[in-house]
Amino acid sequence: MGTFHEVVELSGHIIDSWSLPRAWDTIMDRGGNFTVQEISIGKQKSESSYARFQVEAPDPETLELIISELQQFGAILVDAHDTQTEMVTQDGVLPPNFYSTTNLPTQIRIGGKWVLVENIEMDVVVVVEAEKQRAYCKPMHEVSKGDQVVVGHKGIRVQPYERERGHETFAFMQSDVSSERAKVLAIKNIARQMHEIRERGGKILFVLGPAVIHTGAGRYVAELIRRNYIHAIFGGNAIITHDIESALFGTSLGVNLKTGEQVEGGHRNHLRAINAMRGVGSLEKAIEIGLLREGITYEAVTRGLPLVLAGSIRDDGPMPGVITDMPVAQHHMREVVQDVDMTIMVASMLHAIATGNLLPARVRTVVVDINPAVVTKLADRGTFQAAGLVTDAELFLRELLESINQLEKELA
Amino acid sequence: MGTFHEVVELSGHIIDSWSLPRAWDTIMDRGGNFTVQEISIGKQKSESSYARFQVEAPDPETLELIISELQQFGAILVDAHDTQTEMVTQDGVLPPNFYSTTNLPTQIRIGGKWVLVENIEMDVVVVVEAEKQRAYCKPMHEVSKGDQVVVGHKGIRVQPYERERGHETFAFMQSDVSSERAKVLAIKNIARQMHEIRERGGKILFVLGPAVIHTGAGRYVAELIRRNYIHAIFGGNAIITHDIESALFGTSLGVNLKTGEQVEGGHRNHLRAINAMRGVGSLEKAIEIGLLREGITYEAVTRGLPLVLAGSIRDDGPMPGVITDMPVAQHHMREVVQDVDMTIMVASMLHAIATGNLLPARVRTVVVDINPAVVTKLADRGTFQAAGLVTDAELFLRELLESINQLEKELA
Amino acid sequence: MGTFHEVVELSGHIIDSWSLPRAWDTIMDRGGNFTVQEISIGKQKSESSYARFQVEAPDPETLELIISELQQFGAILVDAHDTQTEMVTQDGVLPPNFYSTTNLPTQIRIGGKWVLVENIEMDVVVVVEAEKQRAYCKPMHEVSKGDQVVVGHKGIRVQPYERERGHETFAFMQSDVSSERAKVLAIKNIARQMHEIRERGGKILFVLGPAVIHTGAGRYVAELIRRNYIHAIFGGNAIITHDIESALFGTSLGVNLKTGEQVEGGHRNHLRAINAMRGVGSLEKAIEIGLLREGITYEAVTRGLPLVLAGSIRDDGPMPGVITDMPVAQHHMREVVQDVDMTIMVASMLHAIATGNLLPARVRTVVVDINPAVVTKLADRGTFQAAGLVTDAELFLRELLESINQLEKELA
Amino acid sequence: MGTFHEVVELSGHIIDSWSLPRAWDTIMDRGGNFTVQEISIGKQKSESSYARFQVEAPDPETLELIISELQQFGAILVDAHDTQTEMVTQDGVLPPNFYSTTNLPTQIRIGGKWVLVENIEMDVVVVVEAEKQRAYCKPMHEVSKGDQVVVGHKGIRVQPYERERGHETFAFMQSDVSSERAKVLAIKNIARQMHEIRERGGKILFVLGPAVIHTGAGRYVAELIRRNYIHAIFGGNAIITHDIESALFGTSLGVNLKTGEQVEGGHRNHLRAINAMRGVGSLEKAIEIGLLREGITYEAVTRGLPLVLAGSIRDDGPMPGVITDMPVAQHHMREVVQDVDMTIMVASMLHAIATGNLLPARVRTVVVDINPAVVTKLADRGTFQAAGLVTDAELFLRELLESINQLEKELA
Repeated sequence: MGTFHEVVELSGHIIDSWSLPRAWDTIMDRGGNFTVQEISIGKQKSESSYARFQVEAPDPETLELIISELQQFGAILVDAHDTQTEMVTQDGVLPPNFYSTTNLPTQIRIGGKWVLVENIEMDVVVVVEAEKQRAYCKPMHEVSKGDQVVVGHKGIRVQPYERERGHETFAFMQSDVSSERAKVLAIKNIARQMHEIRERGGKILFVLGPAVIHTGAGRYVAELIRRNYIHAIFGGNAIITHDIESALFGTSLGVNLKTGEQVEGGHRNHLRAINAMRGVGSLEKAIEIGLLREGITYEAVTRGLPLVLAGSIRDDGPMPGVITDMPVAQHHMREVVQDVDMTIMVASMLHAIATGNLLPARVRTVVVDINPAVVTKLADRGTFQAAGLVTDAELFLRELLESINQLEKELA
Repeated sequence: MGTFHEVVELSGHIIDSWSLPRAWDTIMDRGGNFTVQEISIGKQKSESSYARFQVEAPDPETLELIISELQQFGAILVDAHDTQTEMVTQDGVLPPNFYSTTNLPTQIRIGGKWVLVENIEMDVVVVVEAEKQRAYCKPMHEVSKGDQVVVGHKGIRVQPYERERGHETFAFMQSDVSSERAKVLAIKNIARQMHEIRERGGKILFVLGPAVIHTGAGRYVAELIRRNYIHAIFGGNAIITHDIESALFGTSLGVNLKTGEQVEGGHRNHLRAINAMRGVGSLEKAIEIGLLREGITYEAVTRGLPLVLAGSIRDDGPMPGVITDMPVAQHHMREVVQDVDMTIMVASMLHAIATGNLLPARVRTVVVDINPAVVTKLADRGTFQAAGLVTDAELFLRELLESINQLEKELA
Repeated sequence: MGTFHEVVELSGHIIDSWSLPRAWDTIMDRGGNFTVQEISIGKQKSESSYARFQVEAPDPETLELIISELQQFGAILVDAHDTQTEMVTQDGVLPPNFYSTTNLPTQIRIGGKWVLVENIEMDVVVVVEAEKQRAYCKPMHEVSKGDQVVVGHKGIRVQPYERERGHETFAFMQSDVSSERAKVLAIKNIARQMHEIRERGGKILFVLGPAVIHTGAGRYVAELIRRNYIHAIFGGNAIITHDIESALFGTSLGVNLKTGEQVEGGHRNHLRAINAMRGVGSLEKAIEIGLLREGITYEAVTRGLPLVLAGSIRDDGPMPGVITDMPVAQHHMREVVQDVDMTIMVASMLHAIATGNLLPARVRTVVVDINPAVVTKLADRGTFQAAGLVTDAELFLRELLESINQLEKELA
Repeated sequence: MGTFHEVVELSGHIIDSWSLPRAWDTIMDRGGNFTVQEISIGKQKSESSYARFQVEAPDPETLELIISELQQFGAILVDAHDTQTEMVTQDGVLPPNFYSTTNLPTQIRIGGKWVLVENIEMDVVVVVEAEKQRAYCKPMHEVSKGDQVVVGHKGIRVQPYERERGHETFAFMQSDVSSERAKVLAIKNIARQMHEIRERGGKILFVLGPAVIHTGAGRYVAELIRRNYIHAIFGGNAIITHDIESALFGTSLGVNLKTGEQVEGGHRNHLRAINAMRGVGSLEKAIEIGLLREGITYEAVTRGLPLVLAGSIRDDGPMPGVITDMPVAQHHMREVVQDVDMTIMVASMLHAIATGNLLPARVRTVVVDINPAVVTKLADRGTFQAAGLVTDAELFLRELLESINQLEKELA
């Protein structure tokens, strides 16, 4: 064993941030080995450490696999080369050895210089425009003939995710999916962050599932929009349909939101709401003629918020405004997420995962769901920055608005 | 088929309350058949209906099984006899053909007269004192030599459970286990009922799991005790231990309830809390000497509330006051439940099911848990009167107190 | 109260099948009342019953609501009229008072004759071609100018769903969502029904989620296709992608299905599989040139099975063959379900609900998922004929194949 | 900051096993700091590393907290002292500063020598008999006046848990709670380990919940006992009651295990089973007189297996043989677990957690449950060695027996 090798280096808070042990773990888990060539450890938490070691593997494939995984902990090949690219020869088809991204900040070396990859997201490829010293992400189906796509693992540098300390903001929720913790504290914390982002003109994205409407919590979201705490909304046909059903008829899934009683059998009101909007042609028109006068959709449209509604195979209708073609909908979502600072996902699984796929790791992400599996699924699929809050969507939103009210009072 | 038969009658709102169709269903599901002898149907919902029919079965066992199930819908054997009893010949052992109770109001015929069974609960037996015209429930392990225990199915009358209408109080939660409904409405409703029970001097029992403390919601429960909205508490070693841990150290499972941070590794504070109480000998003593000064336990003990703490096999300690022997603990719980008007179970599975086993069907029961399975389990085991609220325990209790505050203001 | 009224009649096993009590319940739950005009009850379970009663309501809306709900229990307006229709005046937009279907067999009266509605599914409308004495379903977005759409509630007859008896096939699973029952018995039963359907040339549809592949259970499905037990497949981008990943690389989500070990970081193999198929252009081509040689996709395509793959907003790729536009995908699914006899849904939530929306109530439907919420959701949305099996997808499929093997041996 | 300090050392595979980074993490999370005095890193994975560093904290309490947590990663105070003890002055009450154990192998220094603590389990204390150079665990309620109990953190050495590599047996299940993995592989692996333990005369403990019986899987467990693959059983009143119900009447919770049909209303058979055993007085007697002739209980009792049945507050009966007093039941469980090599917990939450509390970390533990929360709960409470298998209990046991059959054939 060990005839194939490569020397890598790691630097920074590599022990404290677990990069080094995770790197060594990975090497051994994959059946490789390593020999340390140089190591210097910071004496205090403020000091940097450095390690250089040779990675050995029984075959070139394993070596490449190990190197690609080490890059996610920030490892750099010592024997530095420029990144390699290959040209796309068929629209929507990648060269075989394409490099697949993570959602972490990534640099590639072009002409001896490290260049930051723009619009980073996971599981896509990097297109290089060498003459402009630019590199950016593209999903597979958007590459076109002539694109230069990064292949292999040379000349790539990924900045690892550094989890926050127990004493720092936000940290106490990190990867906590338990319902057995004090949620009021976490909610106050989220309120504080939303306020701070709003103050500095940042951007907060809400991803919403239909239970928000069924539980009567739509009014809290509408209020948050009016108060300028929400700057973009993602959802599907169901949330918008029930939101408009509730604006037109006072019901959601036929349940009166004021009394909790079923006022109509089946889904009829929901179909009537869709039909009414289809009749006038668009949400904008419905607002203009005074047919739609309240609710999340009303607030979002009148304020010009980006509202991306992606359809799904189980939809009735659909409601005007819902994008039924999936790549088109993803494209719109991609445009919105790039400058988002915080994302709050409430009672949505499908759209939460879809959004998680597109978010850079730097975006603060809170997933609120009564079902712990939703939170777990998101983390499993790579959105590891997501902090989970296993709680009731309705009471969460009510408490969030209340916390913001209190905070504003304190700061006034 | 059909050589074994018995004539039964049903009366009251037997179609409207589904008693008749359920009865016929049962007969056919069990492989029997029936012939209607007389039927008269009320013309309006306010009128009573009546049905008399012969039940036929292929063998005596099936016939007996069917009759026993029909009794739960209120069927009475036309050929009325007194109830039959047999004498217990060995302490804690029943005669083979014992009648096993439901949690519904039950009468038995003694000397031609119908007598109400006292202290009804499910899955126990009825002991008759014929000379006193009395009948009451006993669990198997408490019967003693000489007890006359009801056997067979003659002379027994069970009053079926009539579910409430959509327009009536409480009905909208009935058997609803969904988290996708407006909980704020349901909580206001519960607040109203608690207030009404308090006003008329009724009795409200809370069954609490440790998550109430871990989430920092103990203070809402303590406040409800102080305000006289809680009149008895059931729980286990964990809830009391964490309640006292929080009173002594400000933590629960080592997490600071004010900051959400872990202040101590492992369970040490929890063990220290138990040890401190063991050191002084009892909860009462700890309060007396000023060691324990706040929390649910403090409020309950100083107000003299029945506080039944039943141990379990996973307990550390235990804390003084916890009953470690199960039949002893059940005995104490039985004493408390008999005059309870309403039970609210929060974030507890083991103690909720145990309490559900003992509650008469007439007791309003609300089960609050973030896990829908808890609600389902309780209903599956026969506590069908339990209304489920799938929501967050912490936010539920916070909102409940808030709703009570509002209600008191409105009524003031 | 009661100035608005209408006389309806119910006949058949209306007590035994709970139609009558449910009808009365509904009337009262909605705030109406009723007066019985005639009632005759069958003396034995084989005899039919009959009831005619006047429904009274405080206002015309409530009356209409009640009538529309009673129709789902088979009630017919005594004062029989032909069904009413209104013409569509704008493509994809319905007349305001449209009748929204259930998934139950439905007849409408045209020119004094009762005509069966073709292609019945829930939540769509009925288009009438009076001159041809025909009526069929259309989803809202497919209606076009000039279509005559059924409105109101006159001249409509719905055949209620009659649940099966305890002694009959399939009944024991009916609406049972518990994991605490003997699943081996249920699986044997399903095997028997699949065999019977296959023998008589019937059609079995499988709806599959990606966990089928991740758990290595794809090979059981492939074998069932080869043995002619599966006649159509619905799924999404994920199942086909992982199926092809497993055929090409022996992994699913990068986990080696033979050893259970992770052989590749992240989703790379999955992207490589998509890329490979995109490179050759289509699944058919990939099979033709010998690139794709095994798996569910391979078996389905080579045998010409309808394979409808509907995309979703969280998809990578997509894989060739996946339909990215939702109404188009629904259209294909609609074509396939009409002559299906049985549907088995395994480890899929999104596609299971979507399929459930389209299935007529007569289609035997089994939902297999480890999460009880999936089963509950499907039933909540109207697919009440779905029998739930809360169990492990992998072990279910393994056991299903084993049961079929045994059954074939017994019958050989 | 940093006026309070202590020098500790760590050695072994401290980077590879993550001990060092976790130690540094802990120091900083708790608000302390550190200065490295010496560090040497192994150049290859086979070589040991060594680190000595000074821990600094703002106050003595924080310092002590940090030290106590570092000990769990194997840190030793350089300034080595003998362990300190204090005498118990009141039965069942500990000295205030007691040391609370983990479930990891632990040594304490007595008279300059390191002595292994016997019967290690978590959350108990260490009693020292200095003259005999012995130390062993005792739960709080069992300490008696005069016992010397370890206090503080000096002279204590904990051997950290080293997780296994990807290539090693068992590792692939480690902390995996997903249902989306190939379970057949994991089950084969468990079968192999059980076989190996049986061959070398080791001891396998099964902890069983009642769903094992309800699903008809009791026969697989009975067969495993007969084949000498199970050497001790823990459970509660429910499992034994339903096991005996099934042996006497062929039902579980009244459901016929051969047909899946309900043969009796409510819990009657279950009460009859308990009553029958109470009538004869004991399980042994029931077997002796030929009343109990099959099932798990029968096999366990006739083979003399330790069968510890701990009651709970929700029990009916109880069945003879069930221990109703919790500390007594725990005492019996403690006796059994000490020489156990492997524990398999199936469909049990209460008894699984209770057993997990008592198990040393070295015991291979597999938790099988359809509910992922059970697995998570166990790990959260410190039984971190538990490997979770989220799957169906019935199909798991069926497959386990099948895998053992295959394995025996291969080895024959």
